[in-house]
Amino acid sequence: MTISRYFKTAVLGDGTPVPAPLVASVTRFVRFNEVDPLNVVWHGHYASYFEDARVAFGERYGLGYQAMYDPGFVTPVKQLQIDYEAPLRFNQECVITGSLFWSEAARLNFEYTVTDGEGRLTTRGYTVQLFLTLAGELVYARPDFYEAFRARWKNGLTGI
Amino acid sequence: MTISRYFKTAVLGDGTPVPAPLVASVTRFVRFNEVDPLNVVWHGHYASYFEDARVAFGERYGLGYQAMYDPGFVTPVKQLQIDYEAPLRFNQECVITGSLFWSEAARLNFEYTVTDGEGRLTTRGYTVQLFLTLAGELVYARPDFYEAFRARWKNGLTGI
Amino acid sequence: MTISRYFKTAVLGDGTPVPAPLVASVTRFVRFNEVDPLNVVWHGHYASYFEDARVAFGERYGLGYQAMYDPGFVTPVKQLQIDYEAPLRFNQECVITGSLFWSEAARLNFEYTVTDGEGRLTTRGYTVQLFLTLAGELVYARPDFYEAFRARWKNGLTGI
Amino acid sequence: MTISRYFKTAVLGDGTPVPAPLVASVTRFVRFNEVDPLNVVWHGHYASYFEDARVAFGERYGLGYQAMYDPGFVTPVKQLQIDYEAPLRFNQECVITGSLFWSEAARLNFEYTVTDGEGRLTTRGYTVQLFLTLAGELVYARPDFYEAFRARWKNGLTGI
Repeated sequence: MTISRYFKTAVLGDGTPVPAPLVASVTRFVRFNEVDPLNVVWHGHYASYFEDARVAFGERYGLGYQAMYDPGFVTPVKQLQIDYEAPLRFNQECVITGSLFWSEAARLNFEYTVTDGEGRLTTRGYTVQLFLTLAGELVYARPDFYEAFRARWKNGLTGI
Repeated sequence: MTISRYFKTAVLGDGTPVPAPLVASVTRFVRFNEVDPLNVVWHGHYASYFEDARVAFGERYGLGYQAMYDPGFVTPVKQLQIDYEAPLRFNQECVITGSLFWSEAARLNFEYTVTDGEGRLTTRGYTVQLFLTLAGELVYARPDFYEAFRARWKNGLTGI
Repeated sequence: MTISRYFKTAVLGDGTPVPAPLVASVTRFVRFNEVDPLNVVWHGHYASYFEDARVAFGERYGLGYQAMYDPGFVTPVKQLQIDYEAPLRFNQECVITGSLFWSEAARLNFEYTVTDGEGRLTTRGYTVQLFLTLAGELVYARPDFYEAFRARWKNGLTGI
Repeated sequence: MTISRYFKTAVLGDGTPVPAPLVASVTRFVRFNEVDPLNVVWHGHYASYFEDARVAFGERYGLGYQAMYDPGFVTPVKQLQIDYEAPLRFNQECVITGSLFWSEAARLNFEYTVTDGEGRLTTRGYTVQLFLTLAGELVYARPDFYEAFRARWKNGLTGI
């Protein structure tokens, strides 16, 4: 997933390619209360599946909810898209992978895939998150903590 | 529902009966994402149905979330019980009724019924809520705002 | 919302404009359990808000879950997009509007808006639904019941 | 938890003690969308936590949803009680334990505890489940598959 299906690939100011996306995965099983009368995961629940991947990402790379809240920022979802390829059923194992793609903007561009226990793609999508201050004001410039994170990313961050 | 199935009926200090319960109802329809593979409302969702009745109650009698938060209190649920009599299905109409029973303790004792569009009982239950300060400390004595509410209740409160 | 932000406007075979979208709305209030630690509706819940509009639409125009299930079809969501403009808070009133846009394909193209009690846009988005047989097979041609529905639409359907 | 807080201890027909409860546990982390504006897990979500334990139990002992569905039975929850002792917060680890207590009746009596990462009890409760045929008829006698399960239980079942 080095090339995003959803986000445009950018180049850095000096023309070099942007750093490869950072990736984290989590495995879970479909819960009974997530399954609808058609015996498949209700389509809206995938927003929480994607969030599971973001949480795993945050823990692996030090960019979790608290790591952003402490310096004074929250990152609400501005846009969500989900593409449904195949259903998941009760108690089915799945792997949710989130990949953060490099962006010059003050935003977090995550792409996701959900695969079943045999590795077949069932769902994919993306989210775009903005930075807000705790007072709820939109932040147009990249916050310092995010700049530091990007510097580590550029230098080959592989997890904390 | 003047006599509770769940709460003991008390008498006031002077031996007179306690004020009758205060009652509020709300009508809703079963949502698709609330229905499980057996084509009935998943049992856990009734906690939110009961909450719908509490919210309607709060609005009717001036005892809502904000009316308690403003003077510095929250009222988390300490105990929940749900008794399932009959299922509800997708898009079925139902009426959720919450009744606050008088208590001398610093707590809110709500009893609930859920009836279908024909008035048949489908679900019943109760919650017990405690008073906590915003700092999270348990409050053993009835807060002033609740005392004022009880005074109005005793005097025949019928809604605001 | 005659012109969609999301779907391309088509013309009929004879070059005339397609019928205007069919529209249905529903009013609801934000439930306590839909609100997240940031005191706003958790972003994933809007999928269910959109579904509320689809259900209202189905009832108004005779294209609900059962009306499609009876002749042998279900219409799972193939793609969902949500654009978040402003937050909604606990107990806030909102109006969810779903508009079905004409399509020549065997699919349902719904666009949604969510506005708050003052009419301000808070959220918008769309879904694309496919037709599947009850056995789960994708249907490429428009089913008969849907053809009949489109004929009524062309002739000025305004609800049943 | 050999002695239940909720269920009466019975003796077998010959006066010997009933078999000890069967126990299964599952570890999970609190998800962001489960947390309410008070920064704690919304009280209704514990019904799904208990269900997680039942699923783990079903897998360990061969008494899962499918193992009961295949011979023609479902086991809807007839009664649920939850006692809240302490809150859980976002991303907090917890262990959910479900214990099936012996009963002579055609029902499943599960008791649950939820403990946090340090082993402190946060929540407890129970469910009572009945046996229904797939046609929805209440079953008063213990089904054969359940009798076989009980025989294994009596003989020291420790998981499959």
